[in-house]
Amino acid sequence: MKQMDMIYEGKAKKVYATDDPNCVIVDYKDDATAFNGQKKGTIVGKGAINNRMTNYLMKVLEEKGVPTHFVEELDDRRTVVKRVSIIPLEVIIRNKAAGSFSKRLGIPEGTELKCSTLEFSYKDDDLGDPLINSYMAKAIGAATQEEIDTITKYAFTVNDVLKDFFAQIGIELIDFKLEFGKTSDGQIVLADEISPDTCRYWDMKTGKHLDKDTFRRDLGDPEGAYQEVFKRMGFGE
Amino acid sequence: MKQMDMIYEGKAKKVYATDDPNCVIVDYKDDATAFNGQKKGTIVGKGAINNRMTNYLMKVLEEKGVPTHFVEELDDRRTVVKRVSIIPLEVIIRNKAAGSFSKRLGIPEGTELKCSTLEFSYKDDDLGDPLINSYMAKAIGAATQEEIDTITKYAFTVNDVLKDFFAQIGIELIDFKLEFGKTSDGQIVLADEISPDTCRYWDMKTGKHLDKDTFRRDLGDPEGAYQEVFKRMGFGE
Repeated sequence: MKQMDMIYEGKAKKVYATDDPNCVIVDYKDDATAFNGQKKGTIVGKGAINNRMTNYLMKVLEEKGVPTHFVEELDDRRTVVKRVSIIPLEVIIRNKAAGSFSKRLGIPEGTELKCSTLEFSYKDDDLGDPLINSYMAKAIGAATQEEIDTITKYAFTVNDVLKDFFAQIGIELIDFKLEFGKTSDGQIVLADEISPDTCRYWDMKTGKHLDKDTFRRDLGDPEGAYQEVFKRMGFGE
Repeated sequence: MKQMDMIYEGKAKKVYATDDPNCVIVDYKDDATAFNGQKKGTIVGKGAINNRMTNYLMKVLEEKGVPTHFVEELDDRRTVVKRVSIIPLEVIIRNKAAGSFSKRLGIPEGTELKCSTLEFSYKDDDLGDPLINSYMAKAIGAATQEEIDTITKYAFTVNDVLKDFFAQIGIELIDFKLEFGKTSDGQIVLADEISPDTCRYWDMKTGKHLDKDTFRRDLGDPEGAYQEVFKRMGFGE
């Protein structure tokens, strides 16, 4: 597959066209941003770690019945994925209170929830990716009821699979963000990435943050946090 | 029924205990507030108008199968209602974009929606009554799934009834806020009020605001707006 023009550059990835109209190449960067791009920095080695972790987890999820955009890992930083039109909803699943949930509701981080929650944020940087609900998503044409039902089902399956996976390596999955896309033939697939950029991982014994909160909150050594998760997942030291 | 101690004073109403433990008396004030109490003023005559409008509409809704807290109108400003524990969710139904919906999503006021929407705000002044969804409401124990289902069903029925009712008097129902409570025997009933304080009413011909936006946005003559709706509903001039 031939890498062609860059068609998009996001905060953490570049996307290139290929000679296959149904595929693109994503190229993971070490750039880190937080607070809707207001804080910027670099986490050395993050791009390679996130690329390989994401691909590994996408394969695990495919086996559990969640279709994904994954096609083929090219090298440390680059992966071929299906070309999709992204559904403009960030899908957030939470198992414990943290981050914006804690802030919005005045509930301390780490508080147990009576049930896992699903939230949709409307993907719009200018609006600050505002929280919306499924009625609002339908009302503005961001998604149909059928799409919302499919996404919801997949997102909770992802939660079940990832919670178990990370528990086995001593990591508690506090919350995470997913994005979904639609392929040219109309299939909804899990897209984007699954990494310490998009998940909150807390060490089960110490409660230590093993995710982007190390960068967001200046907790120190974000590289070490990403490497720790990578190592526990069985990747080379 | 004997009016006893005041047990609560809200922004627009006082609530008094009575000699019946299952009933309270609400007493409507002329006080008007906006922006979570930051803007304060008076709309002369509002209390009496809102009291009588609310009671009228509660009776209409009862006939259409929506249980309400209404018991008996005592006088211009005071009404006996069932004593309820309020479910801490403001329920907002929208038929067109306006207010916080327009602001949150960058959509001009008056924009048609692909469907009517329902939103829950978590009733907490200190947090600014934040938007939440049904998963979040369950997760923090604000309501159960059964309560959410009941409230949702009633809220959309209220919308159908009120949209028709106001269309017949030349008023477009843009959006409105409801509150629900639980009686001592566990029944969920519509509580609070239905008035230009809690609904957006636009004149169908002129688009003129006939609601609290006249006060909120300093559009002039809020008294006239409230009286206009009151008059069209058939109340004495």
